[in-house]
Amino acid sequence: MIDETHDPDLLSWVESANGPEADFPIQNLPFAVLRRNGTAERFRPALAIGDQALDLHELHRTGLIRSSALDACMGSTLNPLMALGAAVTAGFRRDLSRLLRVDSKHVKTLETCLIPLSQVEYALPCEIGDYTDFFTSIHHATNTGRLFRPDSPLLPNYRWVPVGYHGRSSSIGVSGQTFPRPRGQIVLPGEESPVFEACRRLDYELELGIFVGAGNAQGQPVQMDDAADHVFGLCLLNDWSARDIQAWEYQPLGPFLAKNFATTISPWIVTSDALAPFRVPWTRADGEPDALPHLSSESNRTQGAIDVHLEVQIQTASMRSQGLPPYTLSRSNFTDSYWTVSQLVAHHTSSGCNLRAGDLLGSGTMSGAVAGSEGALIEITRGGANPVSLPNGETRAFLEDGDTVILGGYCARQGFRRIGFGTAVGTVLPAAPGAA
Amino acid sequence: MIDETHDPDLLSWVESANGPEADFPIQNLPFAVLRRNGTAERFRPALAIGDQALDLHELHRTGLIRSSALDACMGSTLNPLMALGAAVTAGFRRDLSRLLRVDSKHVKTLETCLIPLSQVEYALPCEIGDYTDFFTSIHHATNTGRLFRPDSPLLPNYRWVPVGYHGRSSSIGVSGQTFPRPRGQIVLPGEESPVFEACRRLDYELELGIFVGAGNAQGQPVQMDDAADHVFGLCLLNDWSARDIQAWEYQPLGPFLAKNFATTISPWIVTSDALAPFRVPWTRADGEPDALPHLSSESNRTQGAIDVHLEVQIQTASMRSQGLPPYTLSRSNFTDSYWTVSQLVAHHTSSGCNLRAGDLLGSGTMSGAVAGSEGALIEITRGGANPVSLPNGETRAFLEDGDTVILGGYCARQGFRRIGFGTAVGTVLPAAPGAA
Repeated sequence: MIDETHDPDLLSWVESANGPEADFPIQNLPFAVLRRNGTAERFRPALAIGDQALDLHELHRTGLIRSSALDACMGSTLNPLMALGAAVTAGFRRDLSRLLRVDSKHVKTLETCLIPLSQVEYALPCEIGDYTDFFTSIHHATNTGRLFRPDSPLLPNYRWVPVGYHGRSSSIGVSGQTFPRPRGQIVLPGEESPVFEACRRLDYELELGIFVGAGNAQGQPVQMDDAADHVFGLCLLNDWSARDIQAWEYQPLGPFLAKNFATTISPWIVTSDALAPFRVPWTRADGEPDALPHLSSESNRTQGAIDVHLEVQIQTASMRSQGLPPYTLSRSNFTDSYWTVSQLVAHHTSSGCNLRAGDLLGSGTMSGAVAGSEGALIEITRGGANPVSLPNGETRAFLEDGDTVILGGYCARQGFRRIGFGTAVGTVLPAAPGAA
Repeated sequence: MIDETHDPDLLSWVESANGPEADFPIQNLPFAVLRRNGTAERFRPALAIGDQALDLHELHRTGLIRSSALDACMGSTLNPLMALGAAVTAGFRRDLSRLLRVDSKHVKTLETCLIPLSQVEYALPCEIGDYTDFFTSIHHATNTGRLFRPDSPLLPNYRWVPVGYHGRSSSIGVSGQTFPRPRGQIVLPGEESPVFEACRRLDYELELGIFVGAGNAQGQPVQMDDAADHVFGLCLLNDWSARDIQAWEYQPLGPFLAKNFATTISPWIVTSDALAPFRVPWTRADGEPDALPHLSSESNRTQGAIDVHLEVQIQTASMRSQGLPPYTLSRSNFTDSYWTVSQLVAHHTSSGCNLRAGDLLGSGTMSGAVAGSEGALIEITRGGANPVSLPNGETRAFLEDGDTVILGGYCARQGFRRIGFGTAVGTVLPAAPGAA
């Protein structure tokens, strides 16, 4: 629902929120969990406004808002807030919006709750009970399917089932995550049996993450008309992938070690409410089947998709030492998804599976139909055959040690303020010694 | 390590622990989380001795043991105890064993800590951060592979990779769990596109669950020689499976909705220490490849496998109303596993993936080589083609509404006391109304 909080003319007394390129204008108000950098302070929920974080523990202390939503923010995670459901969190966002407007009467008090974003460090925004990764870009499914199965790139179920698999919660980290290059079983060219070595085909995947708000009881599927009420918000998600390990291990039960060594998300969760102006019709190309009834609804057709611009950049160790900025590898859009967020929620629970507040769903790699929109190196380089040239003369078929990958995203629409996601940054370290 | 706690002549002052058929003699001492049935008491850790539970909150109150291990049991889950690692939990078990022996000086005091097992209800023993299900019986992999892929039942990676996938934590329940028959996309015979209907091929899977004790840091794989130190204990696990949903959805990313609606575990975790006398050499048949070096160790060869007898029983609604006891469908043994527990831990972490205390690993369906040892209906009935006849004249190709499935397990060895696992019981309810 588009309401007063989306008015593009709203300005904040936090002046850095008012510039046209700000990721976090007053129309956004995303949530994260953070503390002052380098301290032993307790991590606590906060929201972003311009280049500042509004500390919600401090806000509570001021007494300016008294609500169950703010009470739910008094711990070290966002799970209790998420669990309150869409109506409560929407009301909370309206309250926060009013406090941050230029006409707020409480600026002096609220200024005591601000921490510059340049001085914070983040934790995961919530306890992620279960993490599920989907596969919703038909272009990505086709591009990668061609490499694994040249004769049948897109399997018959793809157009009917929002294909997904359960991922690993324990190794999800917040932006800034580093991890050693994984080792694993790899079958070298021309060989039939594997060796255990460091991954040679390490890749990123450009995804959106979807945080569940209110959960559902086991055995009680969420219906399409209710699905949006169970979504708290979105973040950026890098599903790091070891392609050589994946190729050998993935049949018949799917990816496992190829994905479970690390997953990096952006710290700020952009709420469903902030994204309301960027909802667009969910459409399918001519010849594609319609969704089955349990994955269909009128509101899904008219506004099920979300127009989120995505991009991925790389900065190698050499680029860093040469002072070169990150280089953009590709750009895509969440409207490249074959399925909507509501369809993912309805599908996931259609078996009776219960979602819990703070559960994370990955969209799957967002690749578009055209060159330059591929969301992973394996697609850009055609399985490594056509390496990418970087501005300093380096090339990349896959990621090398020291490479930093930066995901970015934003929403933009005529007549509305730009809404930014910030970034999800992760860096590959050399394989750990002693692992074999 | 076999020590005094395994002495078969040890008797307990809890007399029900001393009979030859007791699941929980003083040589076992498994852990669970429970409270008095039908009360609003706080769930708390306990151990089983004969037909009694020893309430560890009450034991703490007596002051008879003062240790970090008992302190770690003062919450509502076993995670803090598990996290202390194998050496601490082994010492704790020795302390508890001494208190429960016939020569204990504290019987009167300890009697105040007992609750009859007939009067308790269970919670999950811990928070299960991540659940991974493996596929370690080569007989099961071959039997089911033949049904899904007649031309290539056993894929080339099977003999090298301990194949596994991430499962769903949220829907794991403790024995006594009921769940509505799942709905899902199913392709009916002769059709190409799916319908959304109640599962017609609902199955169980007879597995062992393995609880992680001390975890490992991300990026630091557990080596084979250390793997046993990261295992807290074992339980029974029923990996309920919707075969028709699985057949349509599982490519290319593995099982998802076909498995995530429910998983049932037994309440009592039999510790690694209690299982020590039942360790046996890990062997492979002639012609099978040896494990790669990172999955090999001398202790794994000499004592990596565990001799656990397993069985599955069914009791239909009609059998219950006729007063008929459960009927045994099959018997198998954990030595049918192609991989050992230590190999699963080393493999899982070999990518750098971190395990956390309380994580659960499923063994995969334990099927043996011979008729009568198949751990799932799909194998027993050859994909439903040869239904099983039950004692009351009913037949089962797959599970029907009202069917109760009961997993059981025990260890037995000449010169040692029998160690029981109790049971994992689950019942299928009719599909929930209104799901589509």
